[in-house]
Amino acid sequence: MFFHYKGLQFEAKPDKPDPVLAKHLQELLGGAVGEMTVAMQYLFQGWNCRVPGKYKDLILDTATEELAHVEMIATMIARLLEGAPEDAYVEAAKDPMTAAILGGTNPQHKIVTGLGPALADSAGEAWSGKYIIASGNLFADFSLNAAVEMQGRLQATRVFNMTDDPGVREMLKFNIARDTMHQNQWLAACEELKSDGLETLPSPSAFPESDQNNEYAYTLFNFSEGSQSSEGRWASGPTPDGKGTFNYVDNPQPMAPEPVLPPAPPQYYGTPS
Amino acid sequence: MFFHYKGLQFEAKPDKPDPVLAKHLQELLGGAVGEMTVAMQYLFQGWNCRVPGKYKDLILDTATEELAHVEMIATMIARLLEGAPEDAYVEAAKDPMTAAILGGTNPQHKIVTGLGPALADSAGEAWSGKYIIASGNLFADFSLNAAVEMQGRLQATRVFNMTDDPGVREMLKFNIARDTMHQNQWLAACEELKSDGLETLPSPSAFPESDQNNEYAYTLFNFSEGSQSSEGRWASGPTPDGKGTFNYVDNPQPMAPEPVLPPAPPQYYGTPS
Amino acid sequence: MFFHYKGLQFEAKPDKPDPVLAKHLQELLGGAVGEMTVAMQYLFQGWNCRVPGKYKDLILDTATEELAHVEMIATMIARLLEGAPEDAYVEAAKDPMTAAILGGTNPQHKIVTGLGPALADSAGEAWSGKYIIASGNLFADFSLNAAVEMQGRLQATRVFNMTDDPGVREMLKFNIARDTMHQNQWLAACEELKSDGLETLPSPSAFPESDQNNEYAYTLFNFSEGSQSSEGRWASGPTPDGKGTFNYVDNPQPMAPEPVLPPAPPQYYGTPS
Amino acid sequence: MFFHYKGLQFEAKPDKPDPVLAKHLQELLGGAVGEMTVAMQYLFQGWNCRVPGKYKDLILDTATEELAHVEMIATMIARLLEGAPEDAYVEAAKDPMTAAILGGTNPQHKIVTGLGPALADSAGEAWSGKYIIASGNLFADFSLNAAVEMQGRLQATRVFNMTDDPGVREMLKFNIARDTMHQNQWLAACEELKSDGLETLPSPSAFPESDQNNEYAYTLFNFSEGSQSSEGRWASGPTPDGKGTFNYVDNPQPMAPEPVLPPAPPQYYGTPS
Amino acid sequence: MFFHYKGLQFEAKPDKPDPVLAKHLQELLGGAVGEMTVAMQYLFQGWNCRVPGKYKDLILDTATEELAHVEMIATMIARLLEGAPEDAYVEAAKDPMTAAILGGTNPQHKIVTGLGPALADSAGEAWSGKYIIASGNLFADFSLNAAVEMQGRLQATRVFNMTDDPGVREMLKFNIARDTMHQNQWLAACEELKSDGLETLPSPSAFPESDQNNEYAYTLFNFSEGSQSSEGRWASGPTPDGKGTFNYVDNPQPMAPEPVLPPAPPQYYGTPS
Amino acid sequence: MFFHYKGLQFEAKPDKPDPVLAKHLQELLGGAVGEMTVAMQYLFQGWNCRVPGKYKDLILDTATEELAHVEMIATMIARLLEGAPEDAYVEAAKDPMTAAILGGTNPQHKIVTGLGPALADSAGEAWSGKYIIASGNLFADFSLNAAVEMQGRLQATRVFNMTDDPGVREMLKFNIARDTMHQNQWLAACEELKSDGLETLPSPSAFPESDQNNEYAYTLFNFSEGSQSSEGRWASGPTPDGKGTFNYVDNPQPMAPEPVLPPAPPQYYGTPS
Ligand SMILES: [Ca+2]
Ligand SMILES: [Ca+2]
Ligand SMILES: [Ca+2]
Ligand SMILES: [Ca+2]
Ligand SMILES: [Ca+2]
Ligand SMILES: [Ca+2]
Repeated sequence: MFFHYKGLQFEAKPDKPDPVLAKHLQELLGGAVGEMTVAMQYLFQGWNCRVPGKYKDLILDTATEELAHVEMIATMIARLLEGAPEDAYVEAAKDPMTAAILGGTNPQHKIVTGLGPALADSAGEAWSGKYIIASGNLFADFSLNAAVEMQGRLQATRVFNMTDDPGVREMLKFNIARDTMHQNQWLAACEELKSDGLETLPSPSAFPESDQNNEYAYTLFNFSEGSQSSEGRWASGPTPDGKGTFNYVDNPQPMAPEPVLPPAPPQYYGTPS
Repeated sequence: MFFHYKGLQFEAKPDKPDPVLAKHLQELLGGAVGEMTVAMQYLFQGWNCRVPGKYKDLILDTATEELAHVEMIATMIARLLEGAPEDAYVEAAKDPMTAAILGGTNPQHKIVTGLGPALADSAGEAWSGKYIIASGNLFADFSLNAAVEMQGRLQATRVFNMTDDPGVREMLKFNIARDTMHQNQWLAACEELKSDGLETLPSPSAFPESDQNNEYAYTLFNFSEGSQSSEGRWASGPTPDGKGTFNYVDNPQPMAPEPVLPPAPPQYYGTPS
Repeated sequence: MFFHYKGLQFEAKPDKPDPVLAKHLQELLGGAVGEMTVAMQYLFQGWNCRVPGKYKDLILDTATEELAHVEMIATMIARLLEGAPEDAYVEAAKDPMTAAILGGTNPQHKIVTGLGPALADSAGEAWSGKYIIASGNLFADFSLNAAVEMQGRLQATRVFNMTDDPGVREMLKFNIARDTMHQNQWLAACEELKSDGLETLPSPSAFPESDQNNEYAYTLFNFSEGSQSSEGRWASGPTPDGKGTFNYVDNPQPMAPEPVLPPAPPQYYGTPS
Repeated sequence: MFFHYKGLQFEAKPDKPDPVLAKHLQELLGGAVGEMTVAMQYLFQGWNCRVPGKYKDLILDTATEELAHVEMIATMIARLLEGAPEDAYVEAAKDPMTAAILGGTNPQHKIVTGLGPALADSAGEAWSGKYIIASGNLFADFSLNAAVEMQGRLQATRVFNMTDDPGVREMLKFNIARDTMHQNQWLAACEELKSDGLETLPSPSAFPESDQNNEYAYTLFNFSEGSQSSEGRWASGPTPDGKGTFNYVDNPQPMAPEPVLPPAPPQYYGTPS
Repeated sequence: MFFHYKGLQFEAKPDKPDPVLAKHLQELLGGAVGEMTVAMQYLFQGWNCRVPGKYKDLILDTATEELAHVEMIATMIARLLEGAPEDAYVEAAKDPMTAAILGGTNPQHKIVTGLGPALADSAGEAWSGKYIIASGNLFADFSLNAAVEMQGRLQATRVFNMTDDPGVREMLKFNIARDTMHQNQWLAACEELKSDGLETLPSPSAFPESDQNNEYAYTLFNFSEGSQSSEGRWASGPTPDGKGTFNYVDNPQPMAPEPVLPPAPPQYYGTPS
Repeated sequence: MFFHYKGLQFEAKPDKPDPVLAKHLQELLGGAVGEMTVAMQYLFQGWNCRVPGKYKDLILDTATEELAHVEMIATMIARLLEGAPEDAYVEAAKDPMTAAILGGTNPQHKIVTGLGPALADSAGEAWSGKYIIASGNLFADFSLNAAVEMQGRLQATRVFNMTDDPGVREMLKFNIARDTMHQNQWLAACEELKSDGLETLPSPSAFPESDQNNEYAYTLFNFSEGSQSSEGRWASGPTPDGKGTFNYVDNPQPMAPEPVLPPAPPQYYGTPS
């Protein structure tokens, strides 16, 4: 169960309206690795967590914070959209600058949401439940969370460089800092799972090694021209999971013959052979 | 540019048809973390890679192998769909077992593909280009790749337990082994990026620390009831990026007042205040 | 069965081409509450209507009219896209106004449809069958229809203010009037269902009151800071359905303990607890 | 900003596992009118609300409650998925009942979420940000909210009849009661907007009547065979908005000639005429 | 503008209910090549047709007929869904046959549409505006129409073999016949475009031959192991467009060097090289 | 199994960066009929091909080439995105030309991919597995392939006219030539299927003529005003499949009465009649 405070976690107020930036900020709100994705990913991981205690609490702490980040970006977008002059469209027919600004905005910010945020990304594509993963395996999920926070921080830093509005930058500095924390926290949580003896590499670690084809578990196949790929630490030496040694196959060959499929039964009207 | 061999990388032949399993295997082919996703994710990372040499070669080696895995699963599905008796639908009206089997299959395997694989997941949802990420930042991308390989291996092990068909299991043992390699290889590649001085944590590491709000870069906010989350190593001590010390805020408060938005201009017909 | 007249229900002819406006008008054609949505929603409600007579006839009258509206907007878009000079792209490299106009257009209007309408919204997202609802319960459906007509009229009035083209405005005046009618008609139809004793509030009204937890059927829970929400008529007094009295709970508490989920069976490789 | 309580708003515990019902319950979680939709729709309406005070507070009270409902259904689904025997898939090859049950479940509940809820509907289609509307016009939005609550309650009552599990039914009785409240509350809020002189019918009411083609604002066109549609109160008498009188056109004619479109410019390679 | 007749173009009445078949029939209604696709594809081609006269009339004749086919399948589905016993779900817990039938149905037919058709395919995926193409080039569009009618007829014949219900088969015999006509008609229309001198192969034929790299316009590159592909008439002899001669390149080589991309500007935080 | 060469099939190097053109080129990469669609369509047709020999080899030759085309367009887009000045966004606030160019670009090229290609179309909509068809019937599939190549060539020629960059045009001349070849090759392959006696019109040709309602297999119904459609060769004379004679019905009538549907069972709470 949730409770909503009226105040924001951190200020989200631009110095001046900028509807083009509002369109760009949608990526941080409703993009594949935006705030909505992490909020929902963590909520579903929390509700799907079958390990009570510190892990579940950590997940739900973070999930709930991410809802506050969705709210911050949503508020920032609403404010960036304010101040459109009543005759912008008429002006645009005469003034290249007005026309250029209108051309760079999201039409749905005007027609659909009436100067509010959309649950969509910077290209206007709606947010999708397919963006989130909650597998029930905490090591796999925490690793993914750390990686998504990296992508999210990367996008926030790119948007940071697209504006010099002090208010927007102040908010982004906070978001970028939180992404730093979340990268660190999920990686620490992976370490904790190892320390607690619950999970390790390769994930899932409880799958019996005897059911894995170990002959191919530590081999790099060179399927592209050139063998520069043999020069990295992924091609020789001990593997990060501590269970094997990398080896390199320079010229891999098919291990099975061409599959020859029999004709489909006649009621499907496939082409007979 | 590519070349196609007629043989499969590894055998993909079930001992007997099983259209229900074929439906389940679609997840490994066209699901959010299936073979198509890694194939396309790595291809686009390779084509977007602006660092020539060992990294780019590694990416394209792996991308090209994943295309062979798509081919293996696709072939396995085609073979699992074979052998449907011509009068199955008439039988199903009389025989609960036939009806149950038909009920558990994907209708599009019959109606649309004519006993072939679909580019969709086990719920029949089409594969989407939104599943892939190629950001241009190799550390962020390799971290994501490792995480996706964990999710993919997890799903393959689950499907492994859903069948006792020796042929299917033999193929999955190979796929699971390759996922082990790929987890290890991408994690090793992250280490190599660090060794080479190209990237480190937090990602992206080139973003100036002075543009991050460092006050909140290593803080865990307790936004949910209970403070068990303070008991993990993510709440105190040094952070994995080696740049800070975790701290814990037990009772976080809003740092900004309630946002009060002015009315929208009249031409949008929002409710006046 | 249908028949198509060559004439339009109402004129759809702009005074001059305007490809930027064409992009905006797509929202009224293929947006979530655009003409295609109401056309298909009403058609499926009509085909799913199990009450012969005046209700079914009303639904299909309106559905068929909406097809004519789709045609009108489609025609308007085709005409707005006409007149592109052959060298616009070359000009755009030199002239800011031409560049701005091109930047504000939908690339698919040129590349994909060749100056014709797309079945998509103003952000270029394709129309989806998920936008429509036809539940078989006429009261629930007519209420939804009235609400969708409000959203549709709101969007049309916003687009009206984005252009001063007399021809476009003339068409929109007609569409806006039809939305007025349709709001009124669906609300009147809800009243008629009540008068005829077929349905009432809450919908569905045939669900036995004894199977509803009546203790919570008329309560407003204050789940957010501040209790201004207690000041409206939704917090006290008789309820619109005539069956209860609103009451207000200022400080709602969880009614069930924290859910503690047992571990998943081992074959799913969830994290053990 | 939000805070999460560990307890559930209301108990969500089935008497026994039922993975087929879990698949059905997904509709109430991630369907087009499920709990996620109302939660997000109300949150975005709240964040887009430019009228401070009782309306905004009501919206956010309700939004925050809906998050608790998402949590309840998610928890119920996780519990319904428990208890799968380790050898179910082997059994299914011999036992029609086991095969039938497996056939009726969602494969992703096993392969992807590991016995947890998905952010998808009962057909496995992912939840979409396109399901929500927050227009900035409260009358239009509250009318839509009431209608969506009707559809949601209708679906919950249908699922109620698909199970006799006492625990599931107890939760649904609560959800159905809350849908009753929410229908009433949004309709009451529409009345309050009228009383406060902020909005009325037709929505948006601030659009100048002079910019509407009033000749067609209260007319029912009979576009389908038969004129039973003339028999309802939508065809004559005063209109619900109090501004007009319904009239009926039995045999509507096109008001504009066939549109004749000129050829596209040659650089688009349309067929010349 | 359209008019709706109450009668169906052809009878759509099953001999008995069959909710599993109803799920399968959705493919013919809302699948990628189903009736909705052809109806909308032809309508948009008609509205986008800039050649008045026989071609435009043919397109709109056919489009309007396809709407009647959507109606027929929708009606058939509604009737196949009828007759569900009130206690089916309770029965399913005891009776494998009832459980099997329920397992093979679409949950949304009960929960969402209340025994009506959905605008979705047999896997429950919503119909999408992306399925249609209306390019403004009639030869390209008619060729596509003929091909889509082939795919549609193929699917209808497959469904035909999934049932022995005389009523369903009677309807499908009609639909299959219409698909025969439509294949023939669109191919004839391509011939007519050639006869009329408007378009020919390759499409678009108005593109100047001098702007095509003619060296590679009639070459088959052998990019896969084995050269059986040299044995067909696509590898030698005159080409169907009458403008060239097929030739075969057995061992194609890259014609451009490896692309080496420079680093991205620093504000994007790509990995430096 | 595949192998990747480092060189490109053909050069893909623009003379200068052009991020607006990069956005447009996405249509040829990830649009509904772009290179990704044909690559995947042919791969799945190849893997679903149950006729060994020349047909399967032809399909896989072409599929593999299309992967090289995806790579070429992806490379071209990456290069067109290069060279963005570091202060473009600050400049855009002052300079209409810079603002116009930014307005015409895809925000995700900067925020998400960091100057790389996306797996999306020119409107930013992600590529979908629904775009491809592999039915198992080669005649139906080859006909579709030819048609898709026409649409693809049409789009490439339109983009050709949107730029005068010599490098881009050089690449497009090659792509357009390959589309010419592929149109010809698939049409030749249809002829070969006929010559080999495997398939013919109407597709699928193995469906028994006795199960088709032959009375309506060659009839054009005039469902729209005007009978210009009677003037083409599709309305009289022999049909292209050589099996019938076209006939024309000027005034088609419904062949079945209005469908009257009985009420749904009470547990679905449909409106009673
Ligand atoms: Ca290599
Ligand atoms: Ca906590
Ligand atoms: Ca409150
Ligand atoms: Ca009528
Ligand atoms: Ca070959
Ligand atoms: Ca006609």
